[in-house]
Formats: sequence, C-alpha cells, structure tokens
Amino acid sequence: MNERVLFELVDLAGTFAFAISGATAARRQGLDLFGVLAIAYVTACGGGVVRDLCIGAIPPAGLSDWRYLATAVFAALLTIGAYRWVERLASPVRLFDAMGLGLFAVYGAHKTLEFGHNAEVAILLGVVTAIGGGLARDVLLTRVPVVLQQEIYASAALLGAALAVFGEYAHWPALWAMWLPIAVCIGLRVLSLRYHWNLPSFKGDGAT
Amino acid sequence: MNERVLFELVDLAGTFAFAISGATAARRQGLDLFGVLAIAYVTACGGGVVRDLCIGAIPPAGLSDWRYLATAVFAALLTIGAYRWVERLASPVRLFDAMGLGLFAVYGAHKTLEFGHNAEVAILLGVVTAIGGGLARDVLLTRVPVVLQQEIYASAALLGAALAVFGEYAHWPALWAMWLPIAVCIGLRVLSLRYHWNLPSFKGDGAT
Amino acid sequence: MNERVLFELVDLAGTFAFAISGATAARRQGLDLFGVLAIAYVTACGGGVVRDLCIGAIPPAGLSDWRYLATAVFAALLTIGAYRWVERLASPVRLFDAMGLGLFAVYGAHKTLEFGHNAEVAILLGVVTAIGGGLARDVLLTRVPVVLQQEIYASAALLGAALAVFGEYAHWPALWAMWLPIAVCIGLRVLSLRYHWNLPSFKGDGAT
Repeated sequence: MNERVLFELVDLAGTFAFAISGATAARRQGLDLFGVLAIAYVTACGGGVVRDLCIGAIPPAGLSDWRYLATAVFAALLTIGAYRWVERLASPVRLFDAMGLGLFAVYGAHKTLEFGHNAEVAILLGVVTAIGGGLARDVLLTRVPVVLQQEIYASAALLGAALAVFGEYAHWPALWAMWLPIAVCIGLRVLSLRYHWNLPSFKGDGAT
Repeated sequence: MNERVLFELVDLAGTFAFAISGATAARRQGLDLFGVLAIAYVTACGGGVVRDLCIGAIPPAGLSDWRYLATAVFAALLTIGAYRWVERLASPVRLFDAMGLGLFAVYGAHKTLEFGHNAEVAILLGVVTAIGGGLARDVLLTRVPVVLQQEIYASAALLGAALAVFGEYAHWPALWAMWLPIAVCIGLRVLSLRYHWNLPSFKGDGAT
Repeated sequence: MNERVLFELVDLAGTFAFAISGATAARRQGLDLFGVLAIAYVTACGGGVVRDLCIGAIPPAGLSDWRYLATAVFAALLTIGAYRWVERLASPVRLFDAMGLGLFAVYGAHKTLEFGHNAEVAILLGVVTAIGGGLARDVLLTRVPVVLQQEIYASAALLGAALAVFGEYAHWPALWAMWLPIAVCIGLRVLSLRYHWNLPSFKGDGAT
C-alpha cells in the first residue's frame, strides 16, 4: 500500500516534469494556449498511450485517468503563468525529467509483463513509455527528436527496462525489482548530464 | 431514421472538406498523385482511426467503410483536376471544414461514450477525432500543425465535445444533445474566422 | 512448409533492407548509436506494428517476435561498422527494398484477411505495412516522406496488395495468390527505378 502510494507520487512527478518540458518547448515556438496545453499533455502521456494500445489496455490510462490530464494541465498553466520561475528551474526540471524517465521505463515494462506479454515486448514498451512522449513533442514541433541525438537518454531507459524485466524473471523481491532499475536509470542519466557522456555519433563522416 | 441520414450526410461533407484541405496542401508541396490521395485520405480519416484504436473499435471505420475512402479520393481528384475551381472555393471549403470540425468532435465523443468509456475519454477523443487528421497532414508535410497556432480551432472542438458529453449525461433529448454542441462549435469557429479571434500566444517573449 | 520457410526468408530479407535504409538515413543526419538503432528498427517494423494495431493482433509481431528486432539491430550495426561497404551496396539495397515492398504489401493484405476483415481494410493495410516504416523514418528525421514524392513506390505496393486480395477472393491457388502479386509489385518498382517512371506531380503550378 505504502509502496503503491509512493509509486503513484513518483509517477505523477514524472508526468509533471515531462509536461513542463513539453510546455516550455511549445511556448518557445509561439504556440497558442491550446497548443501549449496539447503539447504538454502529449509529452507527458503520449508514450503511455502507445504502450497501452500495444498491450491491449483499452482505453489507455493516459486518456481515462483524470490525474494525468490534470497534472499536465497544471504543469502547462504553471509554465505559462510563471515562465521566469520555470526557467530558473531548469536544473530541477532535468532532475524530474530523469526521474520520469526511470519510472516510466520501469513501470512500462512492468505493466506489459502484467498483461502477459514476453520479455522483448516488455523491454521495448518500457523504452516507448519513457521516450514516446518526447518523440511526439519533437515531431509535432518539427524538429529531429532530441532523444535520438542527445546525451545518454534512451539508452538509460533501455537499461532500466531491461533490468526491471530481468528482476521480475529472476524473482527479485518486489522492492528491489522496482527500485533498483529506477535508481540505475536515473543515476546513469544524471551522471551523463553532469559529465556530458555521449554515445558515439556519426555526423558528417564518411567512415568510422 | 431521418436524423441518421442527415447525420451521415453531414459526416461525409466533413470528410469531403477535410480531404479537400489535405489535397490542397499536398498539391502545393508538389507531391505526386499518390501523395495527394494519401494526404487527402489521412487528413479526412486519421483522427477517426486513432479514436477507434483507443476505444477498441477494430477495425477502424475509416479503413473498413468504403464511403470514407471514396469521398476522400473523390475530393482529391477534384482538387487535382479542377484546382482553380477549388481555389475559388476557399471560403465554402472553410465553412465545410468548420462543419466537419463540429460534427467530428461531437460524433467522436458520442461514439466513445457508446463504447462504454468515461466522460474524460469521450471529450479527449472527440477533440482527437476533430483535429487528428489535420495534425497528421501537417506532420507528414513537416510543418508545425496549424491547429496548434491558428485562430480558435481545437478549442472550438473541445467545447463541442464537452457540451456533447454534458448533454448525454444530463439526458438532453437526442436532438438537442447532438445538434446544439455541433452548432456551438461551428458557430464559434466561423465567428473566430470572421473576427480573427485568437487564443493568447507567447511568441518571442521571455515573460507574460 | 517449404513455402513457409521461403516466405519467412524473404520477409526477413525485406526487414533487413528496410533497416539498412533507415540506419543509412539516420547515420547521415548524425544521430547517435541508439538513434541509428531506433530508426533502423522503426523503418523495418513500424508499418507492421500499425497494421497489427488496426487488425487487433495484440501484441504486434514486430514487438514480440525477436527475429525482427535482431535483424534490424544486425542491419544497423552493419551500417555503422561497414559504412563504406554498405554505400557500395546501394544498388543491391534498392533491390532488397523493392523485395521488402512487395512482400510486406502482400503479407500485410494476407494477414488482414486472415483476421477476418474486408477487402478494403486488407488493401489499405497492405499499403500501410509496406510504406508505414518509411513514413515513420522520414517523419522522425523531419523530412517530407520520400514515398509520397518519389518514383512509383506506394502505388506499386497498392497494386501488389490489391492483386493479393483479388487472388484470395478469386480462389487462385495459394502459390499464385502469393507470388504473382509480389512479383508484379517488385517488377513494377524495379522498372520504375530503372526507367525513372513517375506518377504525375504538381509542383509549383497553379493549374494542370
């Protein structure tokens, strides 16, 4: 029970952070009020909706559970009404975002297994849950998705989701199976931000 | 019965108007024949397909009911073969588009409730039905979706869908529950076009 | 049995070719390692995932069958590690791509009919299977989808899918019903590449 409450709090914190990042990006592109709300909501819930469609969870929780929508709207209004304050928050926002990444990756993998699908589906949809919203945000704002070119981000989600699936298969105690992968994903993301770790990229060279 | 026929006529008129708008945009970007047909079809049916996936209506009606495809193809061929004529139609097309917006929003909300989902899902998917096709058109043509930055558009759909759900919950007589929200949405859209009403937007300012 | 093995081999060859094309495009845009893997996978499996969502095949085979993922990852790693070799492969890659196009179109239509849907759904989803991955690749890389503006491509898929559905309705022998449409689609695509056949397009003219 206590664990569930804690889990839901972190889940909504992740939703909040993703919604802030979506609203900030939409505001910078000069979208109108509805545009900012829509991008905030899609960033926060897009990944989970695609996951739910793929595992057969109809209707998707992001559409039917009012707390997701309310959190996203609240974050968007905050971004609009207190933009200077949000801008100063850049560093906490990034921390929230890393928390959301870890939690969404692990929760996405967990929910997929619960619906009876195999390990591969669970890992892939864990990643989709974590990065899908950011992808949708960037596609709607017509820029190449930053999650595909930036510091270790999607790969941290991949590691978190894979660890979560491994933990469930190895019958780790529930606490470990949930919190260790989340911690590893968040830690890896935060460290890669701080030390500018990157995956190798291939810009402009004809050969590696 | 009579009401159903009327409803289907307006529904196909909306499909027609959205397909015209998609075909016109695709033609301006120099796509080939198939590209114009595809964009017209996606603009007309994309929102409804996503709605049907989210409510579990498999296969989506936009794929399985030939009248949607036929209407979209007809509108696209008309746009190609009689472009000058269509260009002169700009104002009627906008009116059709507003009609489509209102009808799709209300019909999307109505169908979602019929499938047993809650009010939040119905309102959100009403909006998705109404603006999803236009979003897909703009994403495929790689421009920031106009529905997110233009005169009151998505917000008119939101109001229409919300009124429709309220009407069904309040057990309004069927005629009112359907036509009042449609009329409000269309009216708001047409008035905002005529008087250039806009939601507040935030382009290029660091604070509001 | 023998036919099934052959079919699966060609299917994976198509997956391989589409993954190569995705990885090559992602590498040219300077995405990082994960970005290249992700785009390769999405290009190879994106169309099939959307088809499976629309016909109610949950979870989508592209997510649950490890061979698709493994093939896409292998193709992406090959593109990264042996880029010069892959560049010299341009012409074989195009041939593989044409094979993938034909097979995906026919297989997509076939699977849709098997799930009990009508001819229109089968033809549309055959085309979606064949071109969906390429569309997703181009949307993620923010360029107007080449399948909508290039030599006869999507139209070859349309012809292949339509022939496949016609064959099944006309009770052609299984061998004909499968291989004739595939051959027609591949042949049309290869010929249009060699002789630069194009559908009419409408760039920059106000009237036709």
